Amino acid sequence: MAKEKKLVEAITSMEDDFAKWYTDVVLKAELTDYTSVKGCMVIKPAGYAIWENIQNEVDRRFKETGVENVYLPIFIPESLLEKEKDHVEGFAPEVAWVTQGGLEPLQERLCVRPTSETLFCDFYSKEIHSHRDLPKVYNQWCSVVRWEKTTRPFLRSREFLWQEGHTAHATAEEAKERTIQMLNVYADFCEEVLAIPVIKGQKTEKEKFSGAESTYTIEALMHDGKALQSGTSHYFGDGFARAYDIQYTDKDNKLQYVYQTSFGLSTRIIGAIIMVHGDNSGLKLPPKIAPTQVMVVPIRQDAHGVMEKSHEVEKSLKEAAIRVKVDDSDKSPGWKFSEQEMRGVPLRIELGPKDIEKNQAVLVRRDTREKMIVSLDELPEKTGELLDTIQSDMYTRALEHLNSHTYEAKSYPEFQATIERKPGFVRAMWCGDAACEDKIREDTGATSRCIPFDQEPIGKTCICCGKPAKKMVYWGRAY
Amino acid sequence: MAKEKKLVEAITSMEDDFAKWYTDVVLKAELTDYTSVKGCMVIKPAGYAIWENIQNEVDRRFKETGVENVYLPIFIPESLLEKEKDHVEGFAPEVAWVTQGGLEPLQERLCVRPTSETLFCDFYSKEIHSHRDLPKVYNQWCSVVRWEKTTRPFLRSREFLWQEGHTAHATAEEAKERTIQMLNVYADFCEEVLAIPVIKGQKTEKEKFSGAESTYTIEALMHDGKALQSGTSHYFGDGFARAYDIQYTDKDNKLQYVYQTSFGLSTRIIGAIIMVHGDNSGLKLPPKIAPTQVMVVPIRQDAHGVMEKSHEVEKSLKEAAIRVKVDDSDKSPGWKFSEQEMRGVPLRIELGPKDIEKNQAVLVRRDTREKMIVSLDELPEKTGELLDTIQSDMYTRALEHLNSHTYEAKSYPEFQATIERKPGFVRAMWCGDAACEDKIREDTGATSRCIPFDQEPIGKTCICCGKPAKKMVYWGRAY
Repeated sequence: MAKEKKLVEAITSMEDDFAKWYTDVVLKAELTDYTSVKGCMVIKPAGYAIWENIQNEVDRRFKETGVENVYLPIFIPESLLEKEKDHVEGFAPEVAWVTQGGLEPLQERLCVRPTSETLFCDFYSKEIHSHRDLPKVYNQWCSVVRWEKTTRPFLRSREFLWQEGHTAHATAEEAKERTIQMLNVYADFCEEVLAIPVIKGQKTEKEKFSGAESTYTIEALMHDGKALQSGTSHYFGDGFARAYDIQYTDKDNKLQYVYQTSFGLSTRIIGAIIMVHGDNSGLKLPPKIAPTQVMVVPIRQDAHGVMEKSHEVEKSLKEAAIRVKVDDSDKSPGWKFSEQEMRGVPLRIELGPKDIEKNQAVLVRRDTREKMIVSLDELPEKTGELLDTIQSDMYTRALEHLNSHTYEAKSYPEFQATIERKPGFVRAMWCGDAACEDKIREDTGATSRCIPFDQEPIGKTCICCGKPAKKMVYWGRAY
Repeated sequence: MAKEKKLVEAITSMEDDFAKWYTDVVLKAELTDYTSVKGCMVIKPAGYAIWENIQNEVDRRFKETGVENVYLPIFIPESLLEKEKDHVEGFAPEVAWVTQGGLEPLQERLCVRPTSETLFCDFYSKEIHSHRDLPKVYNQWCSVVRWEKTTRPFLRSREFLWQEGHTAHATAEEAKERTIQMLNVYADFCEEVLAIPVIKGQKTEKEKFSGAESTYTIEALMHDGKALQSGTSHYFGDGFARAYDIQYTDKDNKLQYVYQTSFGLSTRIIGAIIMVHGDNSGLKLPPKIAPTQVMVVPIRQDAHGVMEKSHEVEKSLKEAAIRVKVDDSDKSPGWKFSEQEMRGVPLRIELGPKDIEKNQAVLVRRDTREKMIVSLDELPEKTGELLDTIQSDMYTRALEHLNSHTYEAKSYPEFQATIERKPGFVRAMWCGDAACEDKIREDTGATSRCIPFDQEPIGKTCICCGKPAKKMVYWGRAY
């Protein structure tokens, strides 16, 4: 038992130090590791398998809406980056510059893409000529680089993996529709697959993407009450089209600028999975995203028939399209239990000589630790049902946490006290002025997370300045 | 008909200028395009969809052999790159250097990875402690950068996409086995999925990978008789392990160095698909890799029932797991035919009012242009069978081309004349001396492609120097 204890003791409890708990889980669940490359991370097999599942699910949903995948260069020439003024101001301070290729210095610096709006614009300016060429609904899966000063695995690193969709449309209406459509794809994915409820809304002017006319976001609430921006979708109007000269001939043979959007979701979302669902025993993966949904742990591996029966169970679950493995390592069952809990495997099946005698297995849920005994004859069916239950229970618990940690404030003192004492979202009225956002941030550390689509006025004046309020806003401290 | 003519005329014939034909196909089939980023390419939806299918097939085969995917940083610090002498000598002259991050110059230059042996070694030196940690069989899908001077789409560009597998083993034997195992995965994939026959063998000392003890390759023969290295697998011995200090404690508690391998396959292989199968009407995709296997072209779209029946056919083929689309654009049928031929769609189904009356459809093979009439009742079954036939016929034709363009030379004059007059592989005996490889290259432009596993001695002396021969070698001019 010494070993089991060690594994669990090695994690800081989330109540003691949430940040340390997070890092412990990331490392002990073997999702990532540090490297000799400062600010970058290694994504290890257990972490990358989650990303592969995310990619599969998101990519399938994208393709159902007509998205096509492409791949654009990793480098952006400085002159190309500079064409859209707001965009370059936002990104230039945080890019990595290539100044030498092979043995020779470059005539023009190239940055390693921090995002690819400029490259897509360059591409579209060559590809789009007529209204027949529209819409373009392209996406790429790639890595991007942003020269962050302080970094944390998944949440903020100098390189991260993501997808970036970039679309061009004949009309503003169509582009706006696409912006919201993709935000909904993200929200549905988070809720249905990751069991993470999100608040959908618009970013304020201050918080919007550099170069966008409007930015939409899904915001999730972590276990410690901090918010995490989990996916964004931007409407650009024709701003980029004018800067990069992307024009098409319409049906009346007139030249028109296109209207554009972009949308992105990154490996950051793995941080959300950890911080929404995890506990002091480690990671908890929702079944739909778990690379291994069920781990069969044989009890008394050497006993007659135990390994055979374990592999029979594995086979029968595989046939029911369940992602299952047998832990046939030479570790003790207790050690295996702790290890699978740390790694977040949603369901464990224990199978020993006595169980086999009774034609049964013991099922243990990762989310509730609940144990149940199931007849081997019914195992594939019951396991499938139980995984569905775990998925939906995990969503319900996350939603309850979101709801119970969403507060309202009707005055500035109430707002300040709530932010200080009750970690979570605070809903409060706002005048629309960036100065109030600045003051709130300075006073409380909270930022405007979004102006939710679901506008439910809770007062008439801005909690900060007292002027007439324009919008109800979700505020919170954030990652 | 003017338009159709234009589309086809726009391609240079391969007999006139093969290089120009290649570029024309790449652009007209909309696989890639040039960009403002010199030496880099855009991979467009039609090209990227091929790469996605390649990824799926290769990744599945990898995972069946126990490969796990990971992701390592895009950057390599200069000091890390320099630890293995041969390796850095091979790559340093062709890397891109990042010298500035954000607004500040870096203390140490970082290169954008040209390949990741050094990063995997750094990672493994931290991960591997005991024999229980072995083997490590990791792979990553990513982009790499090599500062090439002359570039061609897919074949040679400053950035390309690939997978790179990197493994660590307790023994040399196990590492050697893995090297050959992965070469066989590549060969099987090329032959079964891409319908490209390959020659498996070992690279000479001169041609091996920088830092490898031995390099194995699969070599394919393009339509113009030039060779294309299509996948490589390297055995490193313990050279990297010693340079990067990757040691483990064996079962007797002794410290041992690991033995390593790496293997890679890139978007270059798309160039092989084009140059092995294509013709003067454009691309020809083997059904197993074609993003669209069947294009239904309605004839007289406006006629009663034609569109409905076309979509019925689409539905019935989809249910038979065939990748099918209906070309319902407003182009003429002839234009659509040319377009689908250019794009290499393996099979076309024509469906007009008269066909519907007779409860039939006209099927046209892309590879042979053969037409056949099939009853609509039998369509899914017959289409499936026909796709299988096309796949196997394409392989047979490529194999016949390979065989009929593989020559033997028993003297140096014969060798020179063959290389000059008969584009293809030349099998000839070799003494094992790099000086002869240098002379052959200088005299004929041919390089040693590989020392095939299948050693069939065809003489006793080196064709170049006349000394006793050690190996039979495949020679050829190459991409």
